[in-house]
Amino acid sequence: MENSELLGKLSNLLGPKGILTAPEEMEPYVTDYRHRRIGSAVAVLLPASTEEVSKAVKLVTKYGVPVYPQGGNTGLCYGAVPDRGVVICLKRMRKLREVDQLSGLLTVDAGLTLAEVHQEAEKLNMQFPLYLGADGTAQIGGLISTNAGGTGVLRYGSMRDLTAGVEVVLADGSILSELLGLRKNNTGYNITQLVAGAEGTLGIVTGAVLRLAPRMTSKAVAWLGFDDINSALQVASLVRSTFGADVEALELVDDGEINCVLRNMTEVRMPLSEVPAYSLIIEIATPRPADNLNEQLEEVLVPPMEEGLISDAVIAQNETQAAEIWHFRHSVTESNQLNGVGVVLDTSVRPSAVAEFVRRADIVTAEKFPQATRQIVAHLADGNVHYIVMFPRAVWNTYSDKVAKELEVEEAIHDVAQAVGGTFSAEHGIGRKLTDEMARLIDPVRLDVMQRIKTALDPDNLMNPRILLP
Amino acid sequence: MENSELLGKLSNLLGPKGILTAPEEMEPYVTDYRHRRIGSAVAVLLPASTEEVSKAVKLVTKYGVPVYPQGGNTGLCYGAVPDRGVVICLKRMRKLREVDQLSGLLTVDAGLTLAEVHQEAEKLNMQFPLYLGADGTAQIGGLISTNAGGTGVLRYGSMRDLTAGVEVVLADGSILSELLGLRKNNTGYNITQLVAGAEGTLGIVTGAVLRLAPRMTSKAVAWLGFDDINSALQVASLVRSTFGADVEALELVDDGEINCVLRNMTEVRMPLSEVPAYSLIIEIATPRPADNLNEQLEEVLVPPMEEGLISDAVIAQNETQAAEIWHFRHSVTESNQLNGVGVVLDTSVRPSAVAEFVRRADIVTAEKFPQATRQIVAHLADGNVHYIVMFPRAVWNTYSDKVAKELEVEEAIHDVAQAVGGTFSAEHGIGRKLTDEMARLIDPVRLDVMQRIKTALDPDNLMNPRILLP
Repeated sequence: MENSELLGKLSNLLGPKGILTAPEEMEPYVTDYRHRRIGSAVAVLLPASTEEVSKAVKLVTKYGVPVYPQGGNTGLCYGAVPDRGVVICLKRMRKLREVDQLSGLLTVDAGLTLAEVHQEAEKLNMQFPLYLGADGTAQIGGLISTNAGGTGVLRYGSMRDLTAGVEVVLADGSILSELLGLRKNNTGYNITQLVAGAEGTLGIVTGAVLRLAPRMTSKAVAWLGFDDINSALQVASLVRSTFGADVEALELVDDGEINCVLRNMTEVRMPLSEVPAYSLIIEIATPRPADNLNEQLEEVLVPPMEEGLISDAVIAQNETQAAEIWHFRHSVTESNQLNGVGVVLDTSVRPSAVAEFVRRADIVTAEKFPQATRQIVAHLADGNVHYIVMFPRAVWNTYSDKVAKELEVEEAIHDVAQAVGGTFSAEHGIGRKLTDEMARLIDPVRLDVMQRIKTALDPDNLMNPRILLP
Repeated sequence: MENSELLGKLSNLLGPKGILTAPEEMEPYVTDYRHRRIGSAVAVLLPASTEEVSKAVKLVTKYGVPVYPQGGNTGLCYGAVPDRGVVICLKRMRKLREVDQLSGLLTVDAGLTLAEVHQEAEKLNMQFPLYLGADGTAQIGGLISTNAGGTGVLRYGSMRDLTAGVEVVLADGSILSELLGLRKNNTGYNITQLVAGAEGTLGIVTGAVLRLAPRMTSKAVAWLGFDDINSALQVASLVRSTFGADVEALELVDDGEINCVLRNMTEVRMPLSEVPAYSLIIEIATPRPADNLNEQLEEVLVPPMEEGLISDAVIAQNETQAAEIWHFRHSVTESNQLNGVGVVLDTSVRPSAVAEFVRRADIVTAEKFPQATRQIVAHLADGNVHYIVMFPRAVWNTYSDKVAKELEVEEAIHDVAQAVGGTFSAEHGIGRKLTDEMARLIDPVRLDVMQRIKTALDPDNLMNPRILLP
């Protein structure tokens, strides 16, 4: 009854294009994109402007109805799946508000996709250096709210670092505009960085100022082999101390993963003659034309080669060889799916703790999951280790409760990450999926501070309730 | 009466080394270092550990007495000047807690000075890239709480960017430890970045994880002359798009400032034969040995030279010439003091708005302060313009209320910054000095959000009251 009154008012406010209530129309907005969780909503709102978002939020929260902000709905942790409230999706808010080439800034509506922002940056002969698979669907607002990561983090940081400011609609409908886009601004609390990564629990991001970076024109790509992780870390440290901020990638892959790719994807080639225990894929890149990076990288690598720290090495001599190396790296996900059932962890530790983390995780895996094997793909310099516990499909099929099995693996490896000073969620976030792990693993003082901030900005707990916070 | 009971308990807790109550002993802690503001305190506490800070805060706030956190007391905005409460100074907390070279991280007590952190980084053949004048006195906790800037911000960011995590004692005495130091961690709100720059109003920073950077081994330094600011901006943009993150400095100086230096400091030399309207000092630096940066910079500068965008240019051919250029830049403050009375603004705008800001500020200065001249020193790529309204000393001495005159100048130029999308406090912060400007210039929605967060974490307003928030 109350709902129908609310829906009437929302219809008047947003017009026919701005509201969906038919179950079949709402379906894509109430289910996560992998169809693992199905939620429900009384309506899906598609406002066309910040003012419409503001008025809609004011109306909905006045009725005590929860608001579920949604971007491209590409998250992996069910943080955009609603539960009997109103979804507010920003897909109709797609304006490029301002281009400021001299300052290297774009001001955008939150509903623009990442791919569209990439295109706008390219028009300026610059780049927006956030790179991830879902770029054609993921929206800027969602990427900010989840502090998205991806392959550019080592050099450019995560979405938080690329966001110079946000515009956000708060639970009471007020609009907070932090869109000055200044490099230096010491006028109080950093609200932008508080909202970024808050998974929509403090408000709805409706706009943002994004930082652009120069485009790279020179590069060097190499594949190095190592007998152990510590040798790889030492060489990674040497490369970083020599090339500083020009290191684009330091990707670690273990022999389990390499053999998995070679076994399942016969057209993919690797440049070394034998599979080393650990491989490091290095890319150095600069915007300077004709920078002789190959020569300089070779010079840096000769001493550790002579010391025996590096067991084997290839530096790509042309674009084709470089592309082959990256093609191998990008074949990992597909080959894993062909290979069996992998429980992929999103753990992160300090670089100095990566070897110890893997050593301990291997012991736990061997003890608790003897029928599984481990594979590793890691953004080494970030300490973001995607430790994969890989079950043969035949084995996995014997487990009656697969969700419980997955959880058992996750908890076991999360404990190891925690024990060596790491975290259980590096870049995917918490959503609805990991709130129990938040309760189990996060310092109660930290949880209390978060809860107090949440209550201060959303006293009735109506913004994305039961997401992120346990 | 109540106070003496509290002081007795604090004495028992902290021992004789941990508490000062004699006025002559407290004097340096209750006055700002330029002796412009004199405050008062019932005691100055010098705790030796985080646990002592925690217990002391719990005690003091239980008595309803305000707590004034203090680092090296080198701030410019009176943010460390107490008002009848208890000062907690961290100068006895000086432990280097952990060195993690592979991860490029130092974990430190908040009482270490910046110079001490520089030394520790050098031992690792790395650098901690925050550079400012007060480095021998300023402490890490204060630098974090004020989000200190300085000359390294263009390349390395401000103190917020260099802080991987904090340990903070909250108003209720609880200890929040965010010292994992992970590059990626998506487990909820970014409390570290909320506390950094909060000027002690949310708690006392007692420890931190700091990010180190490689040391530079190659560099190129140049002095370029321009007829107008927009030409300088175009060339700055070209240099940044070519050298990316390897641009170390882009400092703009106007002819007024250059003539001021030449007039007052006869031993200082400038490399161009004539004084251009605007000069840009450029430094490019990389950690790569034998990087031919001079040649590459020259190549980049030839086209704008030929187009007439650059009116004159010198690239330093050796270390002596480079040092001479930087000596000129570093002579600015001293020459200004010899020259007259300068009201120095800490304004910041987007780089694209620098020219318009200066144009409008010049009009305001000419109209309202015809007896003054303007001088400009700007960190151009940050948009941080130190616009200086320079009064001849004889004129300044005729003003009966000098504080009111200073405020009149500040308000006039702050209005200009605001009008072109900028801010009135780029790197110095708010403290007690600029709370009226906060009330006058900051969006009420932003102020309200800040106030709600403040109340959530410090409900009795006992942490640094009347600092930062109006």
